Amino acid sequence: MTLSIAYLGPVGTYTETATLAYTQWLQETQGKDSILCPYPSIAQTLQAVATQEADFAVVPVENSTEGSVTITLDTLWQLEGLQIQKALVLPIHHCLLATVSSLEEIKTVYSHPQALAQCQKTLESRLPTVQLVPTASTAEALQSLKTEKNSGAIASSRASQLYNLPILISYLNDYPDNCTRFWVVGLETTTEGKYLSLGFSTPANEPGALVRPLAVFAQREINLTRIESRPTKRSLGEYLFFIDIEGSLTQSPVQAALEELPKYTEVLKIFGNYDVLSIQATGNNK
Amino acid sequence: MTLSIAYLGPVGTYTETATLAYTQWLQETQGKDSILCPYPSIAQTLQAVATQEADFAVVPVENSTEGSVTITLDTLWQLEGLQIQKALVLPIHHCLLATVSSLEEIKTVYSHPQALAQCQKTLESRLPTVQLVPTASTAEALQSLKTEKNSGAIASSRASQLYNLPILISYLNDYPDNCTRFWVVGLETTTEGKYLSLGFSTPANEPGALVRPLAVFAQREINLTRIESRPTKRSLGEYLFFIDIEGSLTQSPVQAALEELPKYTEVLKIFGNYDVLSIQATGNNK
Repeated sequence: MTLSIAYLGPVGTYTETATLAYTQWLQETQGKDSILCPYPSIAQTLQAVATQEADFAVVPVENSTEGSVTITLDTLWQLEGLQIQKALVLPIHHCLLATVSSLEEIKTVYSHPQALAQCQKTLESRLPTVQLVPTASTAEALQSLKTEKNSGAIASSRASQLYNLPILISYLNDYPDNCTRFWVVGLETTTEGKYLSLGFSTPANEPGALVRPLAVFAQREINLTRIESRPTKRSLGEYLFFIDIEGSLTQSPVQAALEELPKYTEVLKIFGNYDVLSIQATGNNK
Repeated sequence: MTLSIAYLGPVGTYTETATLAYTQWLQETQGKDSILCPYPSIAQTLQAVATQEADFAVVPVENSTEGSVTITLDTLWQLEGLQIQKALVLPIHHCLLATVSSLEEIKTVYSHPQALAQCQKTLESRLPTVQLVPTASTAEALQSLKTEKNSGAIASSRASQLYNLPILISYLNDYPDNCTRFWVVGLETTTEGKYLSLGFSTPANEPGALVRPLAVFAQREINLTRIESRPTKRSLGEYLFFIDIEGSLTQSPVQAALEELPKYTEVLKIFGNYDVLSIQATGNNK
């Protein structure tokens, strides 16, 4: 059986690189074949799994420079039954692709808003007068190079090869350790792994309403590696919380914490228990 | 003396509406005149105050549907000496502006990414096939209507009047209680008000590293109204935390909490102690 894997396309996005690393890992460790299915948005990628159009989705979760990819968290909360199967961490090295030969000729730079933000300071110092134009993906930004001579696009070196477009600046990141964490999401319930992700809402406007659920983990010396808040969308000042802990559902302190947690939360969702796969920028897993 | 107030322009943005409400309040309560100075980005708006080019900046902080405006938090953390003087809450009612007379004629919809996201579900159901194109502000989205007949722009009813552009759909929000919180930022140190905002980094990778600073407030029954994490940008998994509490620097439990807090934080910044001004969508303050 060939597995179908949904990702934010078209080919040449960083999500595709992460997805290729995952399919290689599936092939090497489990002997499973898979095909990649590009979708135009992250929400549609996750919906494809919820409706069983695809077996897995690979979605960006957070970047070390720009922070959370909020549409991923919001969609995971809204859809039922999705479970994180694996996390992938990909180093992100942005390049400036252009068909002109000097920086002075560039008037406009296109890219995904996250990529523009990750290169903001470099762009300000090296291309202070260009207009920055957001696009739906880094790969989509390349379309503009075909029709608009005095333009540049921020994308990966892989995208440069795939679309046969020259690299004008090979390193554009503001921060050298620029990495993005991705989640592989499926329908199978996961019960084992190094990390556990969950989301909850709390009773509003009570002193300590947020501290109490977090203390449930701290009291048991369970490390909280990430906390993110998102609006409930109903009313200003009402939030959902997404947390990642180091721990497995097979460990009794984690089990005890999860038994106590519903005392302090309104809605509680377990998003999965999973391991991390580190990958190189070329798409090979280490 | 006339005060200069920086905001994300051009005229017709929601930030301008919030800024007008603030200038009206300044006039009515303090008899002060002010002029509005539009800037092309939120970062430049805040920098104008830091460099004393402007007396105050009005910047969006969070929206009830889409969450934090991360560039505001990141810039506030990076610049020195900025203090929140006041919070403003503005109801946001998005309209679809277009020069064509039916929805079927619209091929592309332009707006700021936050506005596109706040109308996402409505757009999917009423305009499922249109292309969504992000712009630097809602007012800038209107430029496209001049050159591209089959386009629409999401902006305010005030923008429709200012630019003399017809409204095709007068209510486009996904959620009825769509509100944005703004901060008025200046250089004067604030020591009194209903809310206190602060930011801190914590020693990394220790169980309870985040819970301890939050418990400092919970133990004193001080209500935490918001918590937001942002990456330090150095390395994946390292965060800064921005919190808002209900309390004033004149209150002894707050003073005691702030004395204890540095035990559990690395860098700690107090962003200001301020009150909230509620405003109507028309720009009049209640």
